Amino acid sequence: MSALPTEAPLATSPAEHGQPVDPLSVPRGMSWGGLHCGIKRRRPDLGLLLAERPVAAAALFTRNRVKAAPVLVSQQQLRANRGWVRAVIVNSGNANCATGPEGIRAARRMAHAVAQTVPCPPEQVLVCSTGVIGVPLPVERIVAAVPRLVESVGGRAADVAAFAEAILTTDTRTKLAVRHFAHGRQEFSVLGCAKGSGMIHPAMATMLAFVVTDAPLRPAALRQALRAVADRTFHTISVDGDTSTNDTVVLLSTGAGTQTELLPGTKAYRGFLDAFEEVCRQLAWAIVTDGEGARRVLQIEVRGCASDRDARRIAETIGTSLLVKTALAGADPNWGRILAAAGRAGVPFELAQVRLWLADVLVFSRGRPVVFNETAVAERMRGRQCSAVLELGHGPGRACLWTSDLTEEYVRINASYRS
Amino acid sequence: MSALPTEAPLATSPAEHGQPVDPLSVPRGMSWGGLHCGIKRRRPDLGLLLAERPVAAAALFTRNRVKAAPVLVSQQQLRANRGWVRAVIVNSGNANCATGPEGIRAARRMAHAVAQTVPCPPEQVLVCSTGVIGVPLPVERIVAAVPRLVESVGGRAADVAAFAEAILTTDTRTKLAVRHFAHGRQEFSVLGCAKGSGMIHPAMATMLAFVVTDAPLRPAALRQALRAVADRTFHTISVDGDTSTNDTVVLLSTGAGTQTELLPGTKAYRGFLDAFEEVCRQLAWAIVTDGEGARRVLQIEVRGCASDRDARRIAETIGTSLLVKTALAGADPNWGRILAAAGRAGVPFELAQVRLWLADVLVFSRGRPVVFNETAVAERMRGRQCSAVLELGHGPGRACLWTSDLTEEYVRINASYRS
Repeated sequence: MSALPTEAPLATSPAEHGQPVDPLSVPRGMSWGGLHCGIKRRRPDLGLLLAERPVAAAALFTRNRVKAAPVLVSQQQLRANRGWVRAVIVNSGNANCATGPEGIRAARRMAHAVAQTVPCPPEQVLVCSTGVIGVPLPVERIVAAVPRLVESVGGRAADVAAFAEAILTTDTRTKLAVRHFAHGRQEFSVLGCAKGSGMIHPAMATMLAFVVTDAPLRPAALRQALRAVADRTFHTISVDGDTSTNDTVVLLSTGAGTQTELLPGTKAYRGFLDAFEEVCRQLAWAIVTDGEGARRVLQIEVRGCASDRDARRIAETIGTSLLVKTALAGADPNWGRILAAAGRAGVPFELAQVRLWLADVLVFSRGRPVVFNETAVAERMRGRQCSAVLELGHGPGRACLWTSDLTEEYVRINASYRS
Repeated sequence: MSALPTEAPLATSPAEHGQPVDPLSVPRGMSWGGLHCGIKRRRPDLGLLLAERPVAAAALFTRNRVKAAPVLVSQQQLRANRGWVRAVIVNSGNANCATGPEGIRAARRMAHAVAQTVPCPPEQVLVCSTGVIGVPLPVERIVAAVPRLVESVGGRAADVAAFAEAILTTDTRTKLAVRHFAHGRQEFSVLGCAKGSGMIHPAMATMLAFVVTDAPLRPAALRQALRAVADRTFHTISVDGDTSTNDTVVLLSTGAGTQTELLPGTKAYRGFLDAFEEVCRQLAWAIVTDGEGARRVLQIEVRGCASDRDARRIAETIGTSLLVKTALAGADPNWGRILAAAGRAGVPFELAQVRLWLADVLVFSRGRPVVFNETAVAERMRGRQCSAVLELGHGPGRACLWTSDLTEEYVRINASYRS
């Protein structure tokens, strides 16, 4: 969290516009694909990642007590296959959550259908779903489409785009990010694809992310990288513990098993880690900027706390405040709402020590409001992104969080999601 | 919390329509008034409660770390006057919060202006403010209006209405509730007046409530009553610890000091407590039904938890979920969102034990969705109020919470609050 550079996210957001991936950037050894199988009315709703042979895998799953069937099944699969998988199948349009034992059977059938077609051992297939909760998954349509899907996958940029399209729900654009790094004479790539469902808050709906690299890393190294990087990227657009029923991040290494693996602690591993972190940061940024109904993003930086943990609590309270998010929607420099949210985060501080900057303008200093040009600040807030910096003057703890604005469009989308 | 009867709030809501108070119901010994002093453009913005002599008082204040000047000043006053006050002055349109030492001086000047005019010792005047944060309070306008305000107060129903009007911000109607109780041959009344600012969540903006009784109770008995009842009423529309910068509840007894006081533990005291609780429940209901942009209220009941505390955590997570609140706005029986919110509350439970009723229809039972008539449930949800009951099957803990729907109108109001 504290390692997140203030400027980085505001400067880099190529993934935001869903640009096509450079064909040369697709990591070797993985095929991608997506098609329409009939869960949604028209749009693509089934995606597949398929490797030539078992590849190393690590995954993070939701901490929600209500875990969707695909989450439970994928967790079992990863235990059974010890981190070596051939394929990941993903459907959108139905979360297969709260669907009882039938839901578990449906998730297993998705995996088995892929395993039979490939063919490969069934435990080597992971399963992800996203969409509405509590509706039985039309698994027959998925099973019927699997042979066609396995047939269709490939390693071209267009195949990646087809996968990226198939996993979306209320997203308005695909989310892709890629980075390269060199180790000796070898060049590796890290390619990530995500879907957010709009709200910044993974709590609010499902976030799925898939990152593939051709750098050689074994499952344990992948797990270590995933834990470290997720905290500084996906979790900066999340509230701790506030995860949806289906959230899943999968990291796959196609290079593992064929070459000398990159080991944690080495320079080569750090090269991978930097590239991986940048990919995740771009995906996180792409998710928050594509927030449901969102017109802009506020970067909230909290400094001067006793600990990073305290700073994070305050940043999260500000970032989830409806009053802050609606003021942002109205480009209203109503900084009092930021202070009021900070005050109820449960972290002690002295107002007399506090300073607050909004859109780089000091608006409150050591217990007193500062006279500033409201029109000018409002004008700055009208852009796609702006920042709030809260300095509490207590210690070295800091945190950074991105939040989208809460607009009437958000309400429209969510008041009628299923209709 | 657990003492809140399921049916009570849905059955009783006379205060909801801001009906005039029966003239015979105004407690003896207290005068009320309100007028326009110039903080707002046109609407009344200054109210006063004035007693004939010092009356017993108790108050609850916000737990927010950022406390408005009037909160800090009133806390000092109550310590200095040991719970005996002559007057409470309240302005709307400006919260006098985050306004520095000048704000503290302004709050003191409000109290002193009343004290000089009455006259009475300055520490016998409490001060409340509500409105925008961080803008200097135009205290001269208040001071200039005080003599006229002191002159104008009275004990008629119209005077109560003038006070109730003067304390509103974005409320669409005044909030009054009254109850009677007898002790021997004597009849007493309990009259309450509140302002919510729309959102259910006192966190979101200021909640002020003033309750006056002519029953004789000393400050210690009032404090005890306030603590007990607030937890079962105002806090059921609140998130624990999530309070605004200005939240204040004041309880005053005009009967104290002239008659034998009602002592905690006696039957007479319980008579008072019942009446007081009912008044507070009606005010809480009035606040949530007048939520900013709100069209309906969802009563969330959580049962079968290990403890009331666990049940409350789950109820609060459901009640503050944007997805639940927008589904409510759309009258969409999307019960999956309720389960998903419960799952991220941080309280362990087994989905296989869970049952969920929406609008009195069982929609999920022991791990499986139940086939139900969605159109019929949606139709029921279209009314002014509906209920969700979540049974976790773990223990005796239960909680109840009221939440309003999140509508486009809410966003409109809050994106342009200051314009």
